Amino acid sequence: MAKQLKVIFLGGVGEIGKNMTAIEYGGNIVIVDCGSSFPTDETPGIDLLIPDFSYLIENKDKVRAILLTHGHEDHIGAMPFLLKEFPNVKVYGTLLTLKLMEHKVKEAHLPQPKTVVVKGGDREKISCFDVEFVKMSHSISGALAFSIKTPVGVIFHTGDFKIDYTPIDGDAVNFATLARIGDEGVLLMLGESTNVEREGYTMSERAVGATLEKIFQSHRDRRIIISTFASNVHRLQQIINVATRNKRKIVFSGRSMINISEMAKEIGELDYNPKDIIETDEISKHAPEKICVICTGSQGEPMSALTRMASGDDKIHITDKDTVVFSSSPIPGNERSVYNVINNLYRQGAKVLYGSLEELHVSGHACKEELKLMLSLIKPKFFIPVHGEYRHLKQHSELAMTLGVGKSNTLITDIGSVVEVKKKKLEKLSSVTAGNVYVDGLTVGDVDSMVLRDRRQLSKDGFVTVLISISLENEGLVGKPEIIARGIQFNDDNLEEMRDIIAKAFERFDYKGAEDRATFKASVRKQLNKFISLSLKQRPMILPIIMEI
Amino acid sequence: MAKQLKVIFLGGVGEIGKNMTAIEYGGNIVIVDCGSSFPTDETPGIDLLIPDFSYLIENKDKVRAILLTHGHEDHIGAMPFLLKEFPNVKVYGTLLTLKLMEHKVKEAHLPQPKTVVVKGGDREKISCFDVEFVKMSHSISGALAFSIKTPVGVIFHTGDFKIDYTPIDGDAVNFATLARIGDEGVLLMLGESTNVEREGYTMSERAVGATLEKIFQSHRDRRIIISTFASNVHRLQQIINVATRNKRKIVFSGRSMINISEMAKEIGELDYNPKDIIETDEISKHAPEKICVICTGSQGEPMSALTRMASGDDKIHITDKDTVVFSSSPIPGNERSVYNVINNLYRQGAKVLYGSLEELHVSGHACKEELKLMLSLIKPKFFIPVHGEYRHLKQHSELAMTLGVGKSNTLITDIGSVVEVKKKKLEKLSSVTAGNVYVDGLTVGDVDSMVLRDRRQLSKDGFVTVLISISLENEGLVGKPEIIARGIQFNDDNLEEMRDIIAKAFERFDYKGAEDRATFKASVRKQLNKFISLSLKQRPMILPIIMEI
Repeated sequence: MAKQLKVIFLGGVGEIGKNMTAIEYGGNIVIVDCGSSFPTDETPGIDLLIPDFSYLIENKDKVRAILLTHGHEDHIGAMPFLLKEFPNVKVYGTLLTLKLMEHKVKEAHLPQPKTVVVKGGDREKISCFDVEFVKMSHSISGALAFSIKTPVGVIFHTGDFKIDYTPIDGDAVNFATLARIGDEGVLLMLGESTNVEREGYTMSERAVGATLEKIFQSHRDRRIIISTFASNVHRLQQIINVATRNKRKIVFSGRSMINISEMAKEIGELDYNPKDIIETDEISKHAPEKICVICTGSQGEPMSALTRMASGDDKIHITDKDTVVFSSSPIPGNERSVYNVINNLYRQGAKVLYGSLEELHVSGHACKEELKLMLSLIKPKFFIPVHGEYRHLKQHSELAMTLGVGKSNTLITDIGSVVEVKKKKLEKLSSVTAGNVYVDGLTVGDVDSMVLRDRRQLSKDGFVTVLISISLENEGLVGKPEIIARGIQFNDDNLEEMRDIIAKAFERFDYKGAEDRATFKASVRKQLNKFISLSLKQRPMILPIIMEI
Repeated sequence: MAKQLKVIFLGGVGEIGKNMTAIEYGGNIVIVDCGSSFPTDETPGIDLLIPDFSYLIENKDKVRAILLTHGHEDHIGAMPFLLKEFPNVKVYGTLLTLKLMEHKVKEAHLPQPKTVVVKGGDREKISCFDVEFVKMSHSISGALAFSIKTPVGVIFHTGDFKIDYTPIDGDAVNFATLARIGDEGVLLMLGESTNVEREGYTMSERAVGATLEKIFQSHRDRRIIISTFASNVHRLQQIINVATRNKRKIVFSGRSMINISEMAKEIGELDYNPKDIIETDEISKHAPEKICVICTGSQGEPMSALTRMASGDDKIHITDKDTVVFSSSPIPGNERSVYNVINNLYRQGAKVLYGSLEELHVSGHACKEELKLMLSLIKPKFFIPVHGEYRHLKQHSELAMTLGVGKSNTLITDIGSVVEVKKKKLEKLSSVTAGNVYVDGLTVGDVDSMVLRDRRQLSKDGFVTVLISISLENEGLVGKPEIIARGIQFNDDNLEEMRDIIAKAFERFDYKGAEDRATFKASVRKQLNKFISLSLKQRPMILPIIMEI
């Protein structure tokens, strides 16, 4: 059998979230990222969605390494679940990425994997793959792209990125490196597609610093509370810089804000003087206009610091002397929660700054012109868009074509797609088992679609349990059927009528014993369903229980 | 008792949706609008939210008229419910508004109310109120503002509006009228606040026409399918004009699109030659590039025409010769459904045009500069913002202050607020009963908050019914407890363990009879809850049922 170079798409294509790709050649697999997604209305009660690892488990002996592009949930969130299966596989990433991953592993009470700390410019030989790590800018520090030399050719995976000419750490995208990689020849590029619908360029992270400075200047007499993603370490650095320059003490509020700010300081990703940081309890010792609170909750998360403040449930009390700044945009789906928090902050008297008018936030993802720049630098022969819904993938592949990638040299994949990368063409092979695995409490993966369907039905119209006691001796009902309903309301007339319906159903039915149970239950279910549907226009779940006495 | 002029806020303040305001003087009440809202995650299974009419029902004899600003759901959606209580009260509105309202009443199988068709410039004397109707531009034809002369002073209600200098019907906002009303003196203005967060001006509806023309020019060889709100008659007119100018036949698709286009034609709000309209069945008789489909589904509504086309369930089959245009923006909360439809259209091969880059859609609501213009024309002494969440109301009242409304001359209301309007000041009186009334199937209003809490719990973790049979004779359990679970999964070990837990609970319990039932149930519930929470990390609803035999 000839050796094939295969790319297996296990997540992040046709969806935003749970990114995971595997690259395989001659009995060797490297995994790129292993993210999780949050549940939607379609998956009620589910805690987390993770990729299906079936293909990797079937090929357990081949897995050589896990490469992490960066530390966001949709790239590392499923790592504890993957490491349960592959406790001995080495994990490669930058220091911050690995620290965030290790924190997850620790919280899951699992042993820590072996890790290899890398940085931009490093190279590692992993079985038949030669991996060069390329520093990228993103909304978290320590983001990487990978240039993976395989025996067939080079695969370049962009990871999540933006082109920031003036990043906070001063270490801008190295165009010479990208150009060199492009010149040496890239067979296949996997490119992230999140912002392909946005024209132009993403603003530099530094733009936010300028806005913050203006806000601090014009709110000299007020306490300032700023909410942002804890993992956006460069944002934290900018807020800290502006606050200390304006002689304010800093309070970190919210569990992940406290954790990440400490951890990032430890590993040198965040720079501040510990004297400038105070505890929440010390706030009262300082004048309000000498305080800057940096907190979680920019997405309106129910238990976050800012949500608690907004509803008056936090040690930090909001007053009309507060200016609250959302240095963030609502992630699609979170709008309602975010605006609830904003409304509540206003009700408490605060001044609230949010929205996109000023540069309070910038995206971490490349817009159209940056995607063009990347494609122009890397000049891949083949191009497969990743990290996007179908519409993003489609538009990104069209964009690649306008930049010279041949129409048959780009394709759109689904979760489970396997693409063989030949020197002369891309070829779709049969798909592998892949998809969403549900994490529901402690249950991983075995969540029946039936269970979700039941939950959706229950959430709409509740359920009705009907307990029917039948005397086998005199072949009659014993007492009245007991009706218990939740999530639906019946009045006494409804209940009486339902009991009548059951009694009549029994009269018409020649009930002999256990063998008739299922048929009789079905009949009761059908008739109650009809009654409730006509009289209340609702369709609860109906569960008859039969007791034979 | 001195006669008071009171404004009673029954909806639309502190929320977007279900607008309703009552104005009362000396035993006379006029109602402005009576809208409905759609349910959210917080109200699972609920079909519709409508205002609480308690105050009006308590003051039944005082209600003189219902004035409708325009025909959108959030202004007329609860009319059938209100008319059940007030079948004899006259309803005032423009012809289109009344036709849309009558359609709703007909669908609810209610008798039609008496109506008075009015248009901009008309005046009606309604008891002690003298109402002048003022034509406004909005995203539906026939929108009105009301200038209501009361014995205390004039109340001006803007309704929903934008300032369109070049509306499609050629009948622009009459600045002379607004200026005259302002000059004559307005005591209180109630102003809509939807777009107060947006700087600048809303584009004219006509801008969409220019974009559409460009799209038709550059897609001459393709079938064009355009989705928009059926009630946006001016948008329909523009699409029809562009399509017929480009020699295309028009197909209306979707129930409300067909209904409203016919009705609007009948009353002269929409102008087309019936020869240019063809049925869906006739599409195949024409070349695809000679067809323009106008359809519902711009919000990704599950059963709408476009959603059906996107999933391949419609008579109209999408191919790679189709260009689909969303002449709309997703309403917050609908993003996921809209993008699902877009992804599916792409999968079927269509080219899809959407998003805000080109002027495919314009808002129907005034932006900040237009709100300033309105306040400057009307020059009210008192100002109360309506039609907005708290954040909108707050910002609108601040905007009014920058334009000279005194700080104590503006206030923010909640649902149920009653404001007395005196010549010299606004005064908040005690609130009245008001809020959300849930329409749940055929149940109106009596939906217990308990029922909604149950549904939320059921949607997360389902429920467990445990049937325990107890023999009173020998004080023992009869057989094994029967466990029925839905929306949660147990394996055989779980089930066995739960039966053990129940048996042990019974052993420890000195069960004497019916009087112990509640305590024993509570004990079973507690222990099963503990077990399921520890072993599965889930919290289903637990319902023990006890049979004494």
